[in-house]
Amino acid sequence: MAELKVALGAASYKIHIGTDWLSSLKSQLAQFNFSSKALIITDSNIVNLYSDRVASLFRSAGINAEVYSISSGEQSKSATTAMEVYNKAIEMKLDRKSPIVALGGGVVGDLAGFIAATYLRGVPFIQIPTTLLAQVDSSVGGKVADNHPLGKNLIGAFYQPDLVFIDTNVLNTLPDRELYTGLAEVIKYGIIADGEFFMYLSDNATKILAKDQKSITRIIQRSCEIKAEVVAVDERETGLRAILNFGHTIGHAIEAFTEYKRYNHGEAVAIGMHGAALISYQMGLCSMQVVDKIKSTIAKFHLPLKADSCPGDEIIPLLIRDKKAINGRINWVLVNDIGKVSVVNNVPSAVIDTALKEIT
Amino acid sequence: MAELKVALGAASYKIHIGTDWLSSLKSQLAQFNFSSKALIITDSNIVNLYSDRVASLFRSAGINAEVYSISSGEQSKSATTAMEVYNKAIEMKLDRKSPIVALGGGVVGDLAGFIAATYLRGVPFIQIPTTLLAQVDSSVGGKVADNHPLGKNLIGAFYQPDLVFIDTNVLNTLPDRELYTGLAEVIKYGIIADGEFFMYLSDNATKILAKDQKSITRIIQRSCEIKAEVVAVDERETGLRAILNFGHTIGHAIEAFTEYKRYNHGEAVAIGMHGAALISYQMGLCSMQVVDKIKSTIAKFHLPLKADSCPGDEIIPLLIRDKKAINGRINWVLVNDIGKVSVVNNVPSAVIDTALKEIT
Repeated sequence: MAELKVALGAASYKIHIGTDWLSSLKSQLAQFNFSSKALIITDSNIVNLYSDRVASLFRSAGINAEVYSISSGEQSKSATTAMEVYNKAIEMKLDRKSPIVALGGGVVGDLAGFIAATYLRGVPFIQIPTTLLAQVDSSVGGKVADNHPLGKNLIGAFYQPDLVFIDTNVLNTLPDRELYTGLAEVIKYGIIADGEFFMYLSDNATKILAKDQKSITRIIQRSCEIKAEVVAVDERETGLRAILNFGHTIGHAIEAFTEYKRYNHGEAVAIGMHGAALISYQMGLCSMQVVDKIKSTIAKFHLPLKADSCPGDEIIPLLIRDKKAINGRINWVLVNDIGKVSVVNNVPSAVIDTALKEIT
Repeated sequence: MAELKVALGAASYKIHIGTDWLSSLKSQLAQFNFSSKALIITDSNIVNLYSDRVASLFRSAGINAEVYSISSGEQSKSATTAMEVYNKAIEMKLDRKSPIVALGGGVVGDLAGFIAATYLRGVPFIQIPTTLLAQVDSSVGGKVADNHPLGKNLIGAFYQPDLVFIDTNVLNTLPDRELYTGLAEVIKYGIIADGEFFMYLSDNATKILAKDQKSITRIIQRSCEIKAEVVAVDERETGLRAILNFGHTIGHAIEAFTEYKRYNHGEAVAIGMHGAALISYQMGLCSMQVVDKIKSTIAKFHLPLKADSCPGDEIIPLLIRDKKAINGRINWVLVNDIGKVSVVNNVPSAVIDTALKEIT
């Protein structure tokens, strides 16, 4: 079992990656001074698969854990669902040392994290991510959020978990499309920080897609490492952390335009990475070879390069609503080479138009 | 103009206390790297008194500030009002460097602070408290919150402002009952941390109640100092900060039982301080003289000592829901002497019953 530390001073925490948390969760829990109740938040996809097991692990550690299951899917990241979970927490009389546990994918993690950040002004938070996307992305870095009818993640906080448990075995029950969406973020880590890792992905696509245990563990660990390094430097996204948004500016706009129905997050990010690569090329930051490498690797992992019927002039207003935009200027993360990106806020609109035409 | 620093590392900020912020707000704003838009949240009591002036001060600093007014009163600390304010922020396209400004009392400060803490995962926050209660209490220490139908402040965060401006002139338009409610917290600071200050209050009640400028400035400054010192040691209420809740355990329960209608916050806290003093005496922690001093000072400031028709057996279940309770044990802040308190979690229920009988 690998252990990875996210170094954030007093808010530091450990990520445990392996296949045997069944045996170690109990001893891990014993290291914290939690009170005797916990609330496990999960969703309708996961509840029958893992929640009994996890609840009984908590009970064996002397913590009476109850399970609350929300409907699977992005629509559960709503003020309404949040209110239901607050109600449950209050009913259970959870106190300031009662952990909120996220057992599920990104939606469960974001919502449960937002509850943990705001219930009684903050209670302990444990992440047990069950999708590749959540394992490599949302479980590291402390971004928690709720959606607003006008945009995704507009309401949220930076709130670090006390403990993250990643069990690679849970990926065996993960549908293929959910595997691919996680791989989009994995590819992103290669592009923004590690050219060698990117080549490993490109060269080992077949093994990874077959969920080869060793390859999967390697890519999760390296992804978490890269994210943890970035977050340790810039917890609250005032600088470096922006690079984690490579592909996300366009990706978020496409998700919003298609109302979070047609594409999942990784698919939209894949299209967005293609778009960002094209903008980088037009800005003279990278060669067409770099663009082609990115395109071919995205395609190897069954991810889309284009979003049909998403007209550029309808996408642009959505770009400006990006949380990283300041005074209406978009901060673009652009690629210099595989493994190296930079943040640029003076991309001419003609360049954006051209790139959007190519990918929509 | 006095300047007081709240020392919280990277989250440190300054409180400006005086009568001339009209002239200094502009230069203060210039010291921050805010973006060109701000949202001033105020309420129906304040909007016609000060919001135009404050908005024009922001404009003179190059920040286009719009005013959003909520209904005055505790019922505005709701998920519904929060959603309206998020809508306004999104409509205005506020970005991560756009300040949210609280211009009002505690309700405005708590709600605006919760919005600032959660909109886009956190934006700058400026407090301009217009009641004595907000000036000495909610504007220092970073507690922000929204109410839940089942309890006050159950949803919230610790989120520090960037800047606090306290103008003592605004108290001239404050109704007497609102002055008294603030004085309850001022008395509390004397009891928990400064016996001399408590005596000053007791000896100068007439001047203070007449809003003598010098006395008022002195009590605001000393109250903010005491709170700032406590908060600097324990930002997230894991230890020492609990002492700020002297009188609040019973106070909150009485507020909840009377549905936040019969008593305002300071009145409920005054009754709660009386109750806590009685418990302290019964526990052998202080003399009856201490209890009497507390009672007579509370009474001098036109604050209640008893809550009629609040039966003890209905108050007790509400005590346990206190946010400071862990595993069902209430952490009582009890008085050893005027100026010195301690936290005790083993008060027998018979002692609580007796005290509640005396004060209800």
